[in-house]
Amino acid sequence: MAPGNKGILQRLNAGEVVIGDGGFVFALEKRGYVKAGPWTPEAAYTHPEAVRQLHREFLRAGSNVMQTFTFYASDDKLENRGQSLKITGAQVNEAACDLAREVANEGDALVAGGVSQTPSYLSCKSETEVKAIFKKQLDVFMKKNVDFMIAEYFEHVEEAEWAVQVLKASGKPVAACMCIGPEGDMHGVSTGECAVRLVKAGAQIVGINCHFDPMTCVKAVKMMKDAVEKAGLKAHYMVQPLAFHTPDCNCQGFIDLPEFPFGLEPRILTRWDMHQYAREAYNVGIRYIGGCCGFEPYHIRAVAEELATERGILPAASEKHGMWGAGLEMHTKPWVRARARRDYWEQLQPASGRPLCPSMSSPEGWGVTKGHADLLQHKEATSSQEMKHVVELQKKAKSS
Amino acid sequence: MAPGNKGILQRLNAGEVVIGDGGFVFALEKRGYVKAGPWTPEAAYTHPEAVRQLHREFLRAGSNVMQTFTFYASDDKLENRGQSLKITGAQVNEAACDLAREVANEGDALVAGGVSQTPSYLSCKSETEVKAIFKKQLDVFMKKNVDFMIAEYFEHVEEAEWAVQVLKASGKPVAACMCIGPEGDMHGVSTGECAVRLVKAGAQIVGINCHFDPMTCVKAVKMMKDAVEKAGLKAHYMVQPLAFHTPDCNCQGFIDLPEFPFGLEPRILTRWDMHQYAREAYNVGIRYIGGCCGFEPYHIRAVAEELATERGILPAASEKHGMWGAGLEMHTKPWVRARARRDYWEQLQPASGRPLCPSMSSPEGWGVTKGHADLLQHKEATSSQEMKHVVELQKKAKSS
Amino acid sequence: MAPGNKGILQRLNAGEVVIGDGGFVFALEKRGYVKAGPWTPEAAYTHPEAVRQLHREFLRAGSNVMQTFTFYASDDKLENRGQSLKITGAQVNEAACDLAREVANEGDALVAGGVSQTPSYLSCKSETEVKAIFKKQLDVFMKKNVDFMIAEYFEHVEEAEWAVQVLKASGKPVAACMCIGPEGDMHGVSTGECAVRLVKAGAQIVGINCHFDPMTCVKAVKMMKDAVEKAGLKAHYMVQPLAFHTPDCNCQGFIDLPEFPFGLEPRILTRWDMHQYAREAYNVGIRYIGGCCGFEPYHIRAVAEELATERGILPAASEKHGMWGAGLEMHTKPWVRARARRDYWEQLQPASGRPLCPSMSSPEGWGVTKGHADLLQHKEATSSQEMKHVVELQKKAKSS
Amino acid sequence: MAPGNKGILQRLNAGEVVIGDGGFVFALEKRGYVKAGPWTPEAAYTHPEAVRQLHREFLRAGSNVMQTFTFYASDDKLENRGQSLKITGAQVNEAACDLAREVANEGDALVAGGVSQTPSYLSCKSETEVKAIFKKQLDVFMKKNVDFMIAEYFEHVEEAEWAVQVLKASGKPVAACMCIGPEGDMHGVSTGECAVRLVKAGAQIVGINCHFDPMTCVKAVKMMKDAVEKAGLKAHYMVQPLAFHTPDCNCQGFIDLPEFPFGLEPRILTRWDMHQYAREAYNVGIRYIGGCCGFEPYHIRAVAEELATERGILPAASEKHGMWGAGLEMHTKPWVRARARRDYWEQLQPASGRPLCPSMSSPEGWGVTKGHADLLQHKEATSSQEMKHVVELQKKAKSS
Repeated sequence: MAPGNKGILQRLNAGEVVIGDGGFVFALEKRGYVKAGPWTPEAAYTHPEAVRQLHREFLRAGSNVMQTFTFYASDDKLENRGQSLKITGAQVNEAACDLAREVANEGDALVAGGVSQTPSYLSCKSETEVKAIFKKQLDVFMKKNVDFMIAEYFEHVEEAEWAVQVLKASGKPVAACMCIGPEGDMHGVSTGECAVRLVKAGAQIVGINCHFDPMTCVKAVKMMKDAVEKAGLKAHYMVQPLAFHTPDCNCQGFIDLPEFPFGLEPRILTRWDMHQYAREAYNVGIRYIGGCCGFEPYHIRAVAEELATERGILPAASEKHGMWGAGLEMHTKPWVRARARRDYWEQLQPASGRPLCPSMSSPEGWGVTKGHADLLQHKEATSSQEMKHVVELQKKAKSS
Repeated sequence: MAPGNKGILQRLNAGEVVIGDGGFVFALEKRGYVKAGPWTPEAAYTHPEAVRQLHREFLRAGSNVMQTFTFYASDDKLENRGQSLKITGAQVNEAACDLAREVANEGDALVAGGVSQTPSYLSCKSETEVKAIFKKQLDVFMKKNVDFMIAEYFEHVEEAEWAVQVLKASGKPVAACMCIGPEGDMHGVSTGECAVRLVKAGAQIVGINCHFDPMTCVKAVKMMKDAVEKAGLKAHYMVQPLAFHTPDCNCQGFIDLPEFPFGLEPRILTRWDMHQYAREAYNVGIRYIGGCCGFEPYHIRAVAEELATERGILPAASEKHGMWGAGLEMHTKPWVRARARRDYWEQLQPASGRPLCPSMSSPEGWGVTKGHADLLQHKEATSSQEMKHVVELQKKAKSS
Repeated sequence: MAPGNKGILQRLNAGEVVIGDGGFVFALEKRGYVKAGPWTPEAAYTHPEAVRQLHREFLRAGSNVMQTFTFYASDDKLENRGQSLKITGAQVNEAACDLAREVANEGDALVAGGVSQTPSYLSCKSETEVKAIFKKQLDVFMKKNVDFMIAEYFEHVEEAEWAVQVLKASGKPVAACMCIGPEGDMHGVSTGECAVRLVKAGAQIVGINCHFDPMTCVKAVKMMKDAVEKAGLKAHYMVQPLAFHTPDCNCQGFIDLPEFPFGLEPRILTRWDMHQYAREAYNVGIRYIGGCCGFEPYHIRAVAEELATERGILPAASEKHGMWGAGLEMHTKPWVRARARRDYWEQLQPASGRPLCPSMSSPEGWGVTKGHADLLQHKEATSSQEMKHVVELQKKAKSS
Repeated sequence: MAPGNKGILQRLNAGEVVIGDGGFVFALEKRGYVKAGPWTPEAAYTHPEAVRQLHREFLRAGSNVMQTFTFYASDDKLENRGQSLKITGAQVNEAACDLAREVANEGDALVAGGVSQTPSYLSCKSETEVKAIFKKQLDVFMKKNVDFMIAEYFEHVEEAEWAVQVLKASGKPVAACMCIGPEGDMHGVSTGECAVRLVKAGAQIVGINCHFDPMTCVKAVKMMKDAVEKAGLKAHYMVQPLAFHTPDCNCQGFIDLPEFPFGLEPRILTRWDMHQYAREAYNVGIRYIGGCCGFEPYHIRAVAEELATERGILPAASEKHGMWGAGLEMHTKPWVRARARRDYWEQLQPASGRPLCPSMSSPEGWGVTKGHADLLQHKEATSSQEMKHVVELQKKAKSS
């Protein structure tokens, strides 16, 4: 942390709004540095200029946190996903820490080290084995002295607890995010209960990242907050959702949508959707507000602009952005000038330009009956089927 | 040009496919370096690292041409659009040339200097005055020794002819693009006739950029090709369309869509749409195939991948991309693995995730009756009204 | 009842599928005999030929029940809704009974007398006053000797109970339908609990009619069935839903959709949607399957055709209908002939032909925030707000 | 004609607006009396009560013309389409005339006898043979003394000319309608030229019926009017379009849409769409305004209500219809009352309630490349391919 820089808990305890960054794997996939499928972050090591530039854009857009580009950077994952380069996990993790710190120091930002769900847990390895993986990554983050840790993208609260327990031992503040929606985790633990367990495991900040659109994630974090408060516990709350509209998801999130991951374009949120998201997140009491897959720098800037009054500051990139379309005020066409106002953009229902396409899809997956329009029923069916399947797999494994 | 590097005409004469780059103003607006409204490129001077990185991403994606980031970089435009920084047009143009050359030299790419329509023409300045503006920009491009010139984004063929005449005098190869569709220019000159006049003015390459979606632009270039051939002339053809679906545009293009410029997200083309575009462009005989507003590096990569056989090469960024979704082959969920095949993505009709939104909008503008669904009639009405209006304005000005 | 004709309970006790008719007010509004707004049935008296013909069409389509066209035919309603003709409620009710009986006798159909919710209950009249209204209508039905009674279109279970108690005294079999969805009645009584109370009040058949689309209604009746069985009670189940798709309704049903009642056309179910509905209703154990607003004769025929095997009979109107499109087999165009098969129609996702229109609307009403896309949240908000409002109104009234 | 009743030409010559009726085959298919596929009108003989009632509803809705229900009632057609009943064409035609006359006499309406395209022409029978078929039908109409004749639903202008020539000989006024759009007939004769030829053949009224939506048909009739006037000829104009939105049709009309004929529901026009249609038709100078497939009585009433001022009369069925939603004025919910106004319904973009469905389809047929979004291109391709095919078939036949 730069001298004089306040830590994450100091900021949140003081009631500040902390703005997170956006998702690196999707943004860098579109820029040509990450492969969809494996989604591994070796570009931190092989193409540092591209990763540095993206960090800078988010910083400029208002992010207070530079999350290390270490998603899926554990050795087992790199191996598992067919990463054939002769680069070690440690090399990637270290390079990612250096890039995040370099750019963080260019502004008022913190560095957060990140760990996420492991193939080892899904293949039913023991608590000891899974924890060892988190510990190995943590060692790099401690060596590089990140400012705090984020355990994120967990579908099973048990694995998230294990991660928190490992990270907690470092003495750094720990944030923990599930990638679930309002229907709970893949073992059927309710969203609220997940949060309670994570706080009890030692997380000072809890929330949701990825898998669902902003409004759904905010709703899920609200359930977490309600449950934590009802349990008489205390925590801060964070949310880092998709930048894709997903009203048609089942409980497994956007992975099961037919458009994942190469046909999601029509679902991308506009900057005005982001204003609405930021306001809603703020209103329910979330104070760490960022993004995940699909977020581009201008999405983060919109979050920062919506909360400019509360934060008392506009981001650097706002020098290149007229609030609520003000940049159109001098256009030669009167009807384009007429778009330079807030209510125009708030009320616009943007067309897809795709008359042959529907507005929703049927999610795929276990228990999903194709062509059935009763989406709610889908969710329930899929949820319970899926849960049964995973739980049975795990029982089988643990009993053997 | 790097030693041993072939010029643009050499390549096209040899039958090679030349891949252009994507639109810088839209891409850099999303990254926080260009202001929507003015759309001026001062970032070439103030934030070279951001512009350099975008050049690199397009190079990596397969672009054979680095177009200087000099859109709207004439002094009159910079001034007109409220550009208050104390930066001269020359400083911006020179910085842009240097960045384009630097990155071009990292690969097998050419540098193209660009000029575009001027406020001076629209405010009815004389031929001498308008040509002086083009000449001033050209001087910078000659000083920096670009490889060829592109006159692009012209709505009136007369102004485009003037530009070509100026550029032609430099001895560099000249490409000329109108930003019109199949309905012709704003004075009512047919699309085919525009091309004939540009070839006669000295352009070796003619085509279309911006304002319409890929299929519409390809159709318009086909009309150009037919007319040029019918006139017994010879030329090469280029196309650099939007990366937005615009089936609902009138003859003025996407500016008149209610979503321009801050609500276009649902219209963004997928990579698979780009495959279709590249194939169609190739099939009608276009050999310079690139992009304009909305194109991100992965869109250009998709063009390069579709034409990999014809070009005998895959771009560098394809190391991070399984063809036709192949990167999903190892996914843990069988239904996601099932997406790792060409016909899946070719047949997908991606949902918008926006059930409250329509699939088309009514374009705004002169002569447009709101709420009227007869889109074709719209086009005609708008077209003729608009033409009358502009032509009358110009007559009035010239007679005074 | 015609001699030898089995009563409604005999049929249901024997496990037969009973097919209801469709909604008369919507069908006759389109034919020019009912005024939207008042929705009163004076046409039974003034234009018997139109009402008789509609009865005949439903009989021909497979209906086993001719419901008297007496919706909103109580004196207080006729008066309340601005019915200025000098026709009494009794005249309308008697004429409706005669028409229903005349056509029922042309086939194997029963006559059901119908009562529905009253303005008196909503304006908080006493139990005695409300029951007197039902009793007055019942007197006509008894005089005309209908085969059984249906109390339908109740939003408040209390009023439905009162109706059942009155009808029960007649000795006729009594069916009772709420016009609610899975979220319960307007006082917050759960859908299941409503059914339990209606059975306890004496209804032998319980279910849902109107306000929601078929799949939603079937889901709600399933909840009724589960609750009744859990309570150790016994009943038969019926469903008479809308023929409109209403995925965007809140708990108040289609009245609150912006399209009600003059813009519902794009939501009309196809005959193939009806096959799916009939199968689903049958599968969850519903044996009285009919329709309400929007149902035309061909919709009822589709229900009868889907259940032809179970019922052992095809309706008369099927002589004019090839199953699953078979009538197209001799078309001159091969691609039209190719539509003469079941899977073609089952898989078709029919286009709206309306590119400027969305696929969903935001329901209006108390507690609804306009322009907010979180539909589920809408439902909850509206539901609770609305409940509070109505309950408070009623408390106020009863305490005064 | 009833004594004192004015003939069709008297009315049109006097500048009156004549309102036609709606399509019987589609309306009666939904009521259970016509079989989709054959589409033959034997119900005129077997179920006169159903046909009489539909005539009455149209009369009540404002129709000035009762068209005999004799579509496809020639012997060759009845036989060709698998009509196995032992009913002759003459029996059907005579019954239809009687029903039309009976109801016409209940009001101020005329009876029009109708003939339409024959299988004989498509299978390349000679002019003599085809004319003999028309003559045979005409004999019935003369015997029953209809007020005038309509030759309608012709895709080839040559066959329409033959029909006009036959009918003309009767001395009755003759109207002639093609079922084509703005792209001309199936032999490539332009829409305007078709009209000129029909006027020259003797038709006093020319126009378009079926196959396309109202706005497209009005546009096509406008082209007819312009061409007839340009040729220095005189005629009256009529239009009887579909009540389905068909923006995605190719030149062959709605038959080639994947939804034809059993999935067209989402395309049905609202009454407000009909207001717009009636106004547009009136504005371009059409004075005989009616409907074809999909038109229900309330659609015709909307036409009559839109033109009430011009016609000086409201139809009988308007006693059951508040203009522009006025019937909602007394609704208990304030937001439903707020719908009782013209601009509300004019501006409403009604949702489909079908989030899994697109807004347009790709038409099927010769020359159509599936999955290709360039709809305009579709039209051209299909049009020319189809024309070639049919023309070649006919050349082959005639040369043999």
